[in-house]
Amino acid sequence: MTRIKDRRTIRKYQSTPIPESLLNRLLEESLRTPTMGNMQLYSVVATTDPKVKAELAPAHFNQPMVMGAPVVLTFCADFNRVTKWCEQRDAEPGYDNFLSFINAMSDTLLLTQNFCTLAEEEGLGTCYLGTTVYMPKDIIRVLRLPRLVFPVATITVGYPDEWPEQNDRLPLEGMLHHDVYRDYTPEDIDRIYAYKESLEESRRFVEENNKITLAQVFTDVRYTKKDNIFMSGTMVEALKMQGFF
Amino acid sequence: MTRIKDRRTIRKYQSTPIPESLLNRLLEESLRTPTMGNMQLYSVVATTDPKVKAELAPAHFNQPMVMGAPVVLTFCADFNRVTKWCEQRDAEPGYDNFLSFINAMSDTLLLTQNFCTLAEEEGLGTCYLGTTVYMPKDIIRVLRLPRLVFPVATITVGYPDEWPEQNDRLPLEGMLHHDVYRDYTPEDIDRIYAYKESLEESRRFVEENNKITLAQVFTDVRYTKKDNIFMSGTMVEALKMQGFF
Repeated sequence: MTRIKDRRTIRKYQSTPIPESLLNRLLEESLRTPTMGNMQLYSVVATTDPKVKAELAPAHFNQPMVMGAPVVLTFCADFNRVTKWCEQRDAEPGYDNFLSFINAMSDTLLLTQNFCTLAEEEGLGTCYLGTTVYMPKDIIRVLRLPRLVFPVATITVGYPDEWPEQNDRLPLEGMLHHDVYRDYTPEDIDRIYAYKESLEESRRFVEENNKITLAQVFTDVRYTKKDNIFMSGTMVEALKMQGFF
Repeated sequence: MTRIKDRRTIRKYQSTPIPESLLNRLLEESLRTPTMGNMQLYSVVATTDPKVKAELAPAHFNQPMVMGAPVVLTFCADFNRVTKWCEQRDAEPGYDNFLSFINAMSDTLLLTQNFCTLAEEEGLGTCYLGTTVYMPKDIIRVLRLPRLVFPVATITVGYPDEWPEQNDRLPLEGMLHHDVYRDYTPEDIDRIYAYKESLEESRRFVEENNKITLAQVFTDVRYTKKDNIFMSGTMVEALKMQGFF
């Protein structure tokens, strides 16, 4: 049993498949996650067919985990099911709007995390694919997601074939505020980031990218303003396409 | 130790305070939650001061848990800290956009859920306040959240003073799709909702609200189109105010 504090992200998996009964039990247990008004505003697409995975891979920038993991789970915010239920029961649904998307996204992410915790306790390894919200339209097309369904998290799951070192975290004092938010002074920022910046790995990262500071690797290489602005646009377009905006 | 599958939402708490060392340990362990690019795009405001809780209560429609729980935790999507770090390190941050909000919201919700799981294993009870995204501007004002900080989840925490029955869930087949999404037929919807609709509690709910179907209680009373459209607007306004849109 891997506890949350001992977890690592697993990107390499054994070829052993996950028994369907195990996957179903873990998903079933995760349905106990809190959900708004007990509406369960989510769906899970479990992709194991190599053909479908191959279609999905480009939407995730061909990260090798998509083909390498026995199962790819796409957790979707879903107001389609509730809306269909309302329409069949003489009730007028009003869930084609931004707030409803935020509510469904919240439900879905809480579910996803509890699934991961349960899977890891069972000896499975998981990896979140941050790419899910980068090219949502491609995922929507491949997985044939109807109106009012939107992919918000993708995880790859399988039996671990690696056990990497844990990576660093900022100290708790860097994100905990008492009673109200106390904004950061320049000295706070220096103190909070000191350990991260001191790591050998961070220094190598700066050097490999020909930058001067670690922060520049984030702003100039990994998460650039240009990409963020572009993908904010495609995200809003996709939300409109799915009827949430 | 309460496992995920045995959990209940706890709305009534003993007056016993939560030791600060315990709260800090649980928060510290929850920082192991996966986070995008290891950026930790969140902050947590732990409110215990009754004066601040009293100011916060109206933003949560005066739900009694706010005053009744020893601790109210507001989990916030936070790009303020990273942005300040970038500015101090000669890097140009580009995180004042919608995609960055979505990324920070994701990080924050995964953290929140892992905190809840850890707290419940320790014998604490938790309750999500869905009201967090209804009146975000009021929460922002009371908790003094600066630009690029946005409240996405609030939980109340304390030692349980109740142990309610678990409520129902839809069957797993109702939300699990293999390889790609298979849209619901009217028969699917009938089957998926049959158990929920058959419950004595559901029938009482319909009767008390003078409705004909359970779905109508959701659309006409609990989560109306009018409220959703209004709150979609205030949510977008609040995102603009905080620099995310």
